[in-house]
Amino acid sequence: MATIAMKFGGTSVADIERIRHVAGLVKREVERGNKVAVVVSAMAGETNKLVAWTNDAAKADGAKGIPNQREYDVVVAAGEQITSGLLAITLNAMGIKARSWLGWQVPIQTSSVHGSARIEAVPASEMQRAVESGEVAVVAGFQGVAGSQRISTLGRGGSDTSAVAVAAGIKAARCDIYTDVDGVYTTDPRIVPKARRLEKIAFEEMLEMASLGAKVLQTRSVEIAMLHRVPTRVLSTFTPDQGGTLLCDEEDIVEKKPVTGIAYSRDEAKITLHKIPDRPGIASAIFGPLADGGVNVDMIVQNVSEDGKKTDLTFTVTRGELTRALAAIEAHAKEIGYRDITHDANVAKVSIIGIGMRAHPGVAQTMFHTLSDKGINIQVISTSEIKVSVLIAEEYVELAVRALHSAYELDAA
Amino acid sequence: MATIAMKFGGTSVADIERIRHVAGLVKREVERGNKVAVVVSAMAGETNKLVAWTNDAAKADGAKGIPNQREYDVVVAAGEQITSGLLAITLNAMGIKARSWLGWQVPIQTSSVHGSARIEAVPASEMQRAVESGEVAVVAGFQGVAGSQRISTLGRGGSDTSAVAVAAGIKAARCDIYTDVDGVYTTDPRIVPKARRLEKIAFEEMLEMASLGAKVLQTRSVEIAMLHRVPTRVLSTFTPDQGGTLLCDEEDIVEKKPVTGIAYSRDEAKITLHKIPDRPGIASAIFGPLADGGVNVDMIVQNVSEDGKKTDLTFTVTRGELTRALAAIEAHAKEIGYRDITHDANVAKVSIIGIGMRAHPGVAQTMFHTLSDKGINIQVISTSEIKVSVLIAEEYVELAVRALHSAYELDAA
Repeated sequence: MATIAMKFGGTSVADIERIRHVAGLVKREVERGNKVAVVVSAMAGETNKLVAWTNDAAKADGAKGIPNQREYDVVVAAGEQITSGLLAITLNAMGIKARSWLGWQVPIQTSSVHGSARIEAVPASEMQRAVESGEVAVVAGFQGVAGSQRISTLGRGGSDTSAVAVAAGIKAARCDIYTDVDGVYTTDPRIVPKARRLEKIAFEEMLEMASLGAKVLQTRSVEIAMLHRVPTRVLSTFTPDQGGTLLCDEEDIVEKKPVTGIAYSRDEAKITLHKIPDRPGIASAIFGPLADGGVNVDMIVQNVSEDGKKTDLTFTVTRGELTRALAAIEAHAKEIGYRDITHDANVAKVSIIGIGMRAHPGVAQTMFHTLSDKGINIQVISTSEIKVSVLIAEEYVELAVRALHSAYELDAA
Repeated sequence: MATIAMKFGGTSVADIERIRHVAGLVKREVERGNKVAVVVSAMAGETNKLVAWTNDAAKADGAKGIPNQREYDVVVAAGEQITSGLLAITLNAMGIKARSWLGWQVPIQTSSVHGSARIEAVPASEMQRAVESGEVAVVAGFQGVAGSQRISTLGRGGSDTSAVAVAAGIKAARCDIYTDVDGVYTTDPRIVPKARRLEKIAFEEMLEMASLGAKVLQTRSVEIAMLHRVPTRVLSTFTPDQGGTLLCDEEDIVEKKPVTGIAYSRDEAKITLHKIPDRPGIASAIFGPLADGGVNVDMIVQNVSEDGKKTDLTFTVTRGELTRALAAIEAHAKEIGYRDITHDANVAKVSIIGIGMRAHPGVAQTMFHTLSDKGINIQVISTSEIKVSVLIAEEYVELAVRALHSAYELDAA
């Protein structure tokens, strides 16, 4: 008997029939003697409909069409409110005591950045008492309350984060994220049919996987799971008894291969500034305007200057931010003093991730060799303690991922 | 320059185009220098969709299909939440500072009878300050907050009540109820083409009109308007500059005809208990079980007993409650001791209403005469200071209403 959190995404609660299936999974946990808090997303399609309405509403009077963010949150949060009420109704109809908890009721306290608020605290003692008394808490995901009691939303996919934060808030023994895949794989099975489901993955690894392109979990949800050491399982709504992957502490993983997984992201664009002056302060002259423009810079590489005077600098941004990044740089052309600016959106990032890397020297070398053997040119490299990322031409992505998957002995037998 | 409340129903906010029209009406008031709180219903059709979902959800596992009432409220309240956010977005896009206020934010404190909660208090000082500072408050109608911070709803049509309560809560100079008709008429214009729109109507009269079948305003909203003396106007969303009816104090009405309006209701059923013992306590033996069964009894008439021992008793209920009423009586047949029970659902109630009645004796007599002249038999009579209601066979309703409308000189020239 334990207190657990469960989370179901939009496709798992897309209609009343599926909500009933979810209620069945909750019931099963209750019958096992567990105390349950269940976090739900909006029914698939609802959020898109609500977002479209807010965009239409913002076009009044020839306005620019950007909805007031606070009010956007009020409209969009209705989606999860509806699902939480419907699941609570279904559970009660099945004879299981349940009540809905909205973001402001839990409360899930967030920052005031409406539309993409950050969870700051979940002082859920009232809800925790209710759960411990045997009442299922059905929590509206994706939403919280900011500042002076305004509704906030966490941005797309935020329900994972809600789930882990709620699990931490009620001191749950674990958090089960039900989704449409049955776990975390060594890489994307659509590219590598021999990809294997991982039984376990360390929080740190999952964090890198999520940030580097694996779409199973939101980065922020992994951060919170790691911070609060919430054992978190990813499993399938439709085949819950098969598989699953447990996110856990590094110590709980016995067999540590040098590389656990391969991630990739096509959402990359490269900008190069040619012949910039090699002087102190040049980096801030470039990246200051980008930060002011809200552009997130990912990889950065600065060539060694040949003559001690001029050098080249390359960095990457997401494709959606490319236009804005170029505009920000060009608006400061004079201060920066580059000779030329070029860009390329036909690039992709491929990363190897593994906590075992720390104990196995030469892991990066294997990556460079493997890619070189396939004739793939590496444009930019960036590393951390447990990952190596390279930027390559996009057309080589599948080839690179498959080659690395074999090279690090990740292929299923 | 004044603080005013405005209210728009579901058909007035049925889509983004109409919400834009509503925003235009709000803007007009702001440009006149008024401070505005605007109360909105759910978009037409939304509430029905949400209610259907709650019913479906409650059918889980072969359950009876009555949704948990607290959770029903959570789901259904999302409808007004969405509209309030969308109208606030539209107003902001038009350059008018606005924010949404949900029931729990205002707060609109209600009783805990979920699904048909009663507004108890509207301590809206924070919202009042916001409105006075020039920010339009867009209030989600139909909803409130009960007990320990649970969402409640007021039952169908409750947005009128929200509007008047909000007007009282922020000490508004008046409350404008925008609807799909252009005011309150002497009677239903679909039955009497010569029905006239009333410029003014006393609160007390409107209260009787609403309770007796006129569907322009919710009874409870009129009660609150009367209690707090909130001058309330009924006007058309689509032709706001034409007509309208002002609900006001009796003293503010100069010309007082004996009868102001004629109301009727077809939602009536009659039950007669024959040969019941004429003894003390017999009324409570009959009406006790009905009250316990949640049946509202309207008109009651007890015949004079012929022999001092046995008498007949007739009462009316709504048609929807007829089956339940009969069951409640039959379950107590022994204690009551009637010889026979009969019922008739082909009856209707016609009422004349007017504060002038108090000063004009013989008003009821004119009613009885008029109906008698048309050969209409009166089955039950009930009176109050400012109204007379009679129960007649349903087939005579239109005839009776038209005849009375002429007899009391209400026909338009």
